[in-house]
Amino acid sequence: MKLFFGQIFPEILIDSDEQQHITKVLRMREGEEIFVTDGHGNLAKGTLIFEGKKVTLNVSEIKENLPNFSPKLHIAIAPTKNIDRIEFFVEKAVEMGISEISFILTEKTERKNISIEKLRKQVISASKQSHRFHFPKVNDLTKFSDFMKNLDFENTFVAHCNENLERINLNTLREPQRDNAINQQPTTSNTITFLIGPEGDFSDKEIQLLAERGIKAVSLGNQRLRTETAGIFVAAWNYDKMF
Amino acid sequence: MKLFFGQIFPEILIDSDEQQHITKVLRMREGEEIFVTDGHGNLAKGTLIFEGKKVTLNVSEIKENLPNFSPKLHIAIAPTKNIDRIEFFVEKAVEMGISEISFILTEKTERKNISIEKLRKQVISASKQSHRFHFPKVNDLTKFSDFMKNLDFENTFVAHCNENLERINLNTLREPQRDNAINQQPTTSNTITFLIGPEGDFSDKEIQLLAERGIKAVSLGNQRLRTETAGIFVAAWNYDKMF
Repeated sequence: MKLFFGQIFPEILIDSDEQQHITKVLRMREGEEIFVTDGHGNLAKGTLIFEGKKVTLNVSEIKENLPNFSPKLHIAIAPTKNIDRIEFFVEKAVEMGISEISFILTEKTERKNISIEKLRKQVISASKQSHRFHFPKVNDLTKFSDFMKNLDFENTFVAHCNENLERINLNTLREPQRDNAINQQPTTSNTITFLIGPEGDFSDKEIQLLAERGIKAVSLGNQRLRTETAGIFVAAWNYDKMF
Repeated sequence: MKLFFGQIFPEILIDSDEQQHITKVLRMREGEEIFVTDGHGNLAKGTLIFEGKKVTLNVSEIKENLPNFSPKLHIAIAPTKNIDRIEFFVEKAVEMGISEISFILTEKTERKNISIEKLRKQVISASKQSHRFHFPKVNDLTKFSDFMKNLDFENTFVAHCNENLERINLNTLREPQRDNAINQQPTTSNTITFLIGPEGDFSDKEIQLLAERGIKAVSLGNQRLRTETAGIFVAAWNYDKMF
């Protein structure tokens, strides 16, 4: 399945970078079959038409509103010092079906800026690679205190490393409990959020603030996981429940 | 916990690279507390002593035969074209508690050689980072046909992408079934093995050979996962069951 990014409605337009990729890199030929998704659950199938430098689609089929993961997974993570580690987290989390990624600036976060545009491109690429028709959303880097303002506390969990505080074993958060948690607030969206701290973890003050808001802490096991490993692990854990 | 690699029995010897690291990179001082593990489940605690260029330990406590993961996870994976992706897989799998890694040369494996020594160093580093006292074993690159000769078929699973063949959902392979599978052969070691193919997947011939030996195929869900993502996902899946 050769999948490309573009617009489906009101009319099909293959993204201009993708047009270049089709002709210059992949050197595809007129008449070859491709698929185009808008990343919002819509998919078109057709064959390539070359009109001068423009690449268009001779559509044979359109599928609308393809199913998405439910509940959706949202991970809010502190960027790691080493940018490669964030990029790897993003790629793996997208492949494993994450729906939303936020970057949070906590007290001990050493990296103060990231290129969101580069990460968004990476999300499109990993989505295509893994045949996703709903592309995950990537939010700008936000201060922890600001991020806390818009949280659905009922369906949010924090993974911190403080062994002296009470933490739920992630395994006890199986489907029934999770579904219950989500169903308690029928007005909220069907999303489960995990907060993951930086290399130095959340500060005591931040952990206290999270506890005051009723956000439950989860343990990711006895091993000490790096920030991006914790993120990938939560994505895998959620994906494991989804299929 | 400052953890270093070394020998515990018959006497404690801090690894020579680690001695250098302690004095030259970390610039630690005499009297500071460190831990030393041999990667075989033994751990010593003590304070640093500097004798000329030699770094030794004033031992205060030794713990023997610390608990290990059970069952153990063994992943046999085809090396990816891009070496960074293998290295990332190794690091994440070690953090998540894998016990053995094999590299297999299948029909469609593009990369024909890897630096096992470099990966073994990485395993030590990731083991220390994640506070593991049992270091995973890394086996040399082996031809698929040779690897098949020494397999415990009962406790081996293959993750391939052929949707037309029968595959078990990984989720149905929960603890009871898994324990049953392992208990069927009480003489075999307590290890579960997963085979993961290269970018182009296992060949039809290889898949047939695996089926003839009774090795069950598992599906890792509906997304298309890259080779190293499949490996990390299996490691996370196993780790999730362990704690």
